[in-house]
Amino acid sequence: MSPDPRRTGLFLVGARGAISTTVLHGLESIRSGLPPIGLITESAQLSKVDWAPLNTFHVTGWDIAGNAHRSAEDLARTGVIPHDLVELCGPLRDRLELSIAPGVAEPEDEKLVNSVVQGRMALPLPEVVEVLRQDIRDWKSTERCPKAVVVYLATAERTTKIPSAWEDESADPIALLPSAPANLSRSILYALAALLEGVPFINFTPAPGASVPAVSGMAKRLGVPVLGNDGKTGETLLKTVLAPMFRDRALNVLAWEGYNMLGNKDGAALADPLRKEGKIANKDAVVPSILDNDRMHNGVTIDFVPSLHDWKTAMDYIHFEGFLGAKMSLQFTWHGSDSALAAPLVLDLARLALLAQERGEGGPLRAAASFFKNPLGVSDHDFHRQVELLRNWVRA
Amino acid sequence: MSPDPRRTGLFLVGARGAISTTVLHGLESIRSGLPPIGLITESAQLSKVDWAPLNTFHVTGWDIAGNAHRSAEDLARTGVIPHDLVELCGPLRDRLELSIAPGVAEPEDEKLVNSVVQGRMALPLPEVVEVLRQDIRDWKSTERCPKAVVVYLATAERTTKIPSAWEDESADPIALLPSAPANLSRSILYALAALLEGVPFINFTPAPGASVPAVSGMAKRLGVPVLGNDGKTGETLLKTVLAPMFRDRALNVLAWEGYNMLGNKDGAALADPLRKEGKIANKDAVVPSILDNDRMHNGVTIDFVPSLHDWKTAMDYIHFEGFLGAKMSLQFTWHGSDSALAAPLVLDLARLALLAQERGEGGPLRAAASFFKNPLGVSDHDFHRQVELLRNWVRA
Amino acid sequence: MSPDPRRTGLFLVGARGAISTTVLHGLESIRSGLPPIGLITESAQLSKVDWAPLNTFHVTGWDIAGNAHRSAEDLARTGVIPHDLVELCGPLRDRLELSIAPGVAEPEDEKLVNSVVQGRMALPLPEVVEVLRQDIRDWKSTERCPKAVVVYLATAERTTKIPSAWEDESADPIALLPSAPANLSRSILYALAALLEGVPFINFTPAPGASVPAVSGMAKRLGVPVLGNDGKTGETLLKTVLAPMFRDRALNVLAWEGYNMLGNKDGAALADPLRKEGKIANKDAVVPSILDNDRMHNGVTIDFVPSLHDWKTAMDYIHFEGFLGAKMSLQFTWHGSDSALAAPLVLDLARLALLAQERGEGGPLRAAASFFKNPLGVSDHDFHRQVELLRNWVRA
Amino acid sequence: MSPDPRRTGLFLVGARGAISTTVLHGLESIRSGLPPIGLITESAQLSKVDWAPLNTFHVTGWDIAGNAHRSAEDLARTGVIPHDLVELCGPLRDRLELSIAPGVAEPEDEKLVNSVVQGRMALPLPEVVEVLRQDIRDWKSTERCPKAVVVYLATAERTTKIPSAWEDESADPIALLPSAPANLSRSILYALAALLEGVPFINFTPAPGASVPAVSGMAKRLGVPVLGNDGKTGETLLKTVLAPMFRDRALNVLAWEGYNMLGNKDGAALADPLRKEGKIANKDAVVPSILDNDRMHNGVTIDFVPSLHDWKTAMDYIHFEGFLGAKMSLQFTWHGSDSALAAPLVLDLARLALLAQERGEGGPLRAAASFFKNPLGVSDHDFHRQVELLRNWVRA
Repeated sequence: MSPDPRRTGLFLVGARGAISTTVLHGLESIRSGLPPIGLITESAQLSKVDWAPLNTFHVTGWDIAGNAHRSAEDLARTGVIPHDLVELCGPLRDRLELSIAPGVAEPEDEKLVNSVVQGRMALPLPEVVEVLRQDIRDWKSTERCPKAVVVYLATAERTTKIPSAWEDESADPIALLPSAPANLSRSILYALAALLEGVPFINFTPAPGASVPAVSGMAKRLGVPVLGNDGKTGETLLKTVLAPMFRDRALNVLAWEGYNMLGNKDGAALADPLRKEGKIANKDAVVPSILDNDRMHNGVTIDFVPSLHDWKTAMDYIHFEGFLGAKMSLQFTWHGSDSALAAPLVLDLARLALLAQERGEGGPLRAAASFFKNPLGVSDHDFHRQVELLRNWVRA
Repeated sequence: MSPDPRRTGLFLVGARGAISTTVLHGLESIRSGLPPIGLITESAQLSKVDWAPLNTFHVTGWDIAGNAHRSAEDLARTGVIPHDLVELCGPLRDRLELSIAPGVAEPEDEKLVNSVVQGRMALPLPEVVEVLRQDIRDWKSTERCPKAVVVYLATAERTTKIPSAWEDESADPIALLPSAPANLSRSILYALAALLEGVPFINFTPAPGASVPAVSGMAKRLGVPVLGNDGKTGETLLKTVLAPMFRDRALNVLAWEGYNMLGNKDGAALADPLRKEGKIANKDAVVPSILDNDRMHNGVTIDFVPSLHDWKTAMDYIHFEGFLGAKMSLQFTWHGSDSALAAPLVLDLARLALLAQERGEGGPLRAAASFFKNPLGVSDHDFHRQVELLRNWVRA
Repeated sequence: MSPDPRRTGLFLVGARGAISTTVLHGLESIRSGLPPIGLITESAQLSKVDWAPLNTFHVTGWDIAGNAHRSAEDLARTGVIPHDLVELCGPLRDRLELSIAPGVAEPEDEKLVNSVVQGRMALPLPEVVEVLRQDIRDWKSTERCPKAVVVYLATAERTTKIPSAWEDESADPIALLPSAPANLSRSILYALAALLEGVPFINFTPAPGASVPAVSGMAKRLGVPVLGNDGKTGETLLKTVLAPMFRDRALNVLAWEGYNMLGNKDGAALADPLRKEGKIANKDAVVPSILDNDRMHNGVTIDFVPSLHDWKTAMDYIHFEGFLGAKMSLQFTWHGSDSALAAPLVLDLARLALLAQERGEGGPLRAAASFFKNPLGVSDHDFHRQVELLRNWVRA
Repeated sequence: MSPDPRRTGLFLVGARGAISTTVLHGLESIRSGLPPIGLITESAQLSKVDWAPLNTFHVTGWDIAGNAHRSAEDLARTGVIPHDLVELCGPLRDRLELSIAPGVAEPEDEKLVNSVVQGRMALPLPEVVEVLRQDIRDWKSTERCPKAVVVYLATAERTTKIPSAWEDESADPIALLPSAPANLSRSILYALAALLEGVPFINFTPAPGASVPAVSGMAKRLGVPVLGNDGKTGETLLKTVLAPMFRDRALNVLAWEGYNMLGNKDGAALADPLRKEGKIANKDAVVPSILDNDRMHNGVTIDFVPSLHDWKTAMDYIHFEGFLGAKMSLQFTWHGSDSALAAPLVLDLARLALLAQERGEGGPLRAAASFFKNPLGVSDHDFHRQVELLRNWVRA
């Protein structure tokens, strides 16, 4: 069968995870006529663009474990996906399960995955990239998706060292790959596979991906858009919205203490101090950067609280000083579904990536900064300025 | 003695009130070398302008009752002004008391004021304006302030009807005055006196002032800047910072419930439903306007809690809907000193008004929108866009 | 068929409402083996008593409108009753619908109810009581429930005046009924019907019921237990738990401001100031009574926020003074399902009422005080002392 | 001069610290006629006892560093002690400084203290105890205090191992002392000195003191009361008030996450993981113990946030499950002055200790349980039951 020119592949890393599952069901819900809440590209301000139609989006991807049905049922039970929708989408998940390819796990997790995934992990890194490229080519053909994006939604990774040779934008990552350490971030392998196939790469997790200069350099040379890193969905979003207020009112922030509780797979992973590091660093940086203040006390705590499941709850306490040294406080509690907040951003980002590719813009897409805790190519964390960047780019 | 060309008069309506007292002591504190926290015109972003120097500012004004020393002691006891500073500024307050002129009270409050104030209140409205003008001329001379601004800091007024003839921008308010009702808002009388003396008028309270078309029309014709209305210091500031986030993330706000508690004179006044009306209307309008959403539930409650004194405490609950209809919430508690938040804005506004006058810009100063709940000439309540407006105007 | 000696009737006023629906489904869930969370009579401390077995409880009752299936679906959608359980209990609700009798509405609501209910409302009050008694007798026979309790779960009523003749404990309510006003609280009619049938009466709402002396007097004379008033499920529960702490630490509470938001039928009713009155009075009284403090500021606000549905959200701010006058604060946010909090208490209360009847204790059951905002016969609102009262009574 | 039979010595360990300073000034404030807020022994419920009169209390004690004047000024600046009172009490602090004896620091802190303290630290442990005893005897005579209590208010100590020989109640600590490790908790040395002088010992900090069996055994044998451990002033107080509510309503607590922020000397000390351990253990234990629930998630975090100074701020999130598994939450924020909360308890405890001694009750005073996080001789953490214990003991 010839490729359907209207199909767009969403090739998701972590395709059985909570965000992917929410994306899959959300697309079906929107197709059935329910409102696309949370999609910026459908809002009054940006909807005039000729975005890739949502009903052409087709979900597949990689995973190292899990089961799409169980993910959906878990999300129904915790109140994220409506029960009826989960029932309705059973056949869709069946088809998804058939098309999912085995992912590549971190070496430390080898014992937790099945023999097919172990087989892929046993390959030398250059061959891993080749296998992932073949997956992309296969899906383009069998799933009839001439256009596609790869979205990295894997669970927060352990922090690993990037070899110094990769810090050079002009270096060729393919040449560096054979000598790279075995625990090279998976995000880089997926990024390389996507770029070499001419497919935009979106990094939604706290992993290096295209923030490594050798990778972003290749993206520029190949003219393929890369977007990332680390989706800004909850507490950090609020930080980048509120910190500019303190700056613009010349109020002196003395302490910003953020306590995050979450109970999903990501939360379980973050109980591992090695994995927590990257996320904390991203969450940590934004407020002092916006306020240009390195004397303030800046605390970030993430705790795994299993009973909360997907409902990330953040309690922040901000202590600040006003006129005549008067001490004041702002305190907030954010209670939101991690997956329901992330899923529409994934769809928006796919559309942005496709528009950038259409416009011939390769390399880091600065216009996507408002979506990320640690945006590629943008050092200003002020959410409202990042949104202006997006609006101007869309209008251009 | 010839007027000192470097002295700038801050002629404050409510000169013995908490905000005025904080302004007076704050200026002294800054003169003594303490940092000007909360002053936007001193922040890195705007400090390059040749603002009127703070050490040329000189405070006096009108009041209908009270005592400057008691105000200062009250503010020290509640932790807004440091004790040492209150002691240090005794002579300054003595001098202030000597220069303060009797204000004009609302007719309903006649019994609460002394015979001097009653005497002024007994005059026909046109004569009241003349008396206020004479005060301004006297201060310019005796207090040696060739330049000045009038800042309206009176307690929240009872809502009164503006006669329809005043709704016409081309109408002459002086001609309308003799037939105006006796309870015409005091803010209009002070505004007219200021404008006729060529002095900018800043309205920091929920009162009509220069938002009445006949008054703003006169301001334009006379080329005198008017700035207002209703200082945005706490909960409403946060609303105009946070509501754009929900809009820019396409999240559907279902309910925004704001509960305000305060214990100062303003709080006592707001226990009167007639006075509360204007303030509630201003606080009420901003969120639905930013979100362009008139289906949301929008509650605003203000309660007088005496023990809080100057410490305005607001607890807001925001209920919103995301992807697939998932219901989430954001809750915040703001705990800030009303006077310490307002005082630096008064100084900033005085500087803006003087710069506008220097630049020859009369009528409503749109660039001051970010300071107000109900800004003159600006319908966009988005704080960050209002700040952009300010930055661009300053740079111009 | 002869009555089943093991069946106990729960005759609920408001049998299609959210609490009744939750009771019905909860009983089924417990029968199927799920844990009886929230049932005090099943907790380690009180479970040694020979309580009426939950699997002998049978639900029916009166209502003036509504539909049991829609109630269940609404509660499933808002996350209170699991979806599977709602599906499973369809036949149970079918049977309930067949047995429900028409209730008696308030005169002001005549237009909102169907002709059958209107027919009952048209009867003189003594005949209304007779009809309700007949319902009880019919259910005892057709539903085979030799033992029963009546639980008043109607929506908060409009406050009405109780005729002074009813304030006499020795008065005979049946003799007073013919001359009573037409808007005599429905709770009194149901209470009289229950008492005359020898069935305990539990008043879970802010309505007079057996708190009227003539009614409680009759309960004593007839030896039938009466329990009430106004279930203590959320914010007021916390008040009666926390206020004793301030008392027992000699801390001086300056202000206790409680802001309640709810979106269910009860919330809609409370938007009517006449209905709100009774509830506010009950919520208002507890803190000053526990603290023996009538100088404190004590605010109670209830707002109808439709999007919250059954999820009552209360934000309380407590301002207090410690040693040397230092001002401190405690703030809490309670977020709970009204129906899930109330339903197990209804089951506990039924068991308490049946045990009291078995023990031959008629009139107000003081041991039930911990369940109510305004307990019959107990003036101490301290929750922990009320719980001691219960424990001692159970052990007796 | 012969001892004044009416003087009672408060011999405080950490006599220049924030709590001691607040005690000193508070006594003076009460003597001048201000209300004794926060003193339980002055409340309506317990005031009928013939307590040691507050105007006979005389403060002195030990410290290893600091300055009483600076402590007072710091507490005035942060709003705990009124400015006037600090000025008024200058001579009192002068006299205090003259009577304070050098304390004994932990070996790790040797470099931080002056040579006098170092001199004491260089002594063998038995001699240290002798020196402390001599201090007590000296004060009794020179400060004319025939009666006295020792209150341990030192900063949270590093956790140290208690030698196993000390775990025997019948062991003689004096015999064990020569072979004890040099880092034996200072709290034990002060406890032994007090007991050997027949002076009750109150342990207000997370340190072993009289919880060591050999020490409490000696207290019993000598008939001297010991009270402790670890004052329950804020978050833990609330835990022991709220957890019983969940138990008594049969609600299933899934997670209790407590985040504590503080900025005083105690906070700085707790930034040291070794010192934090003891405090966390005490805070950690209470909720699972009250709820008899070891499956719940129980998080305790303490962060040093310097700008908060003495204002301990705790944000707790409690996730719980009700009927039918409905998930609900309670969240609270406590904002209180550590010293103002602790100081009146110190005075209450001194009175309790003196009454116990008068009644001839030696060893652990169980009636004081409600004052402590980890009460001696009482395993029930339910605050209300602990208060009953106190009331019954006082009445006895």
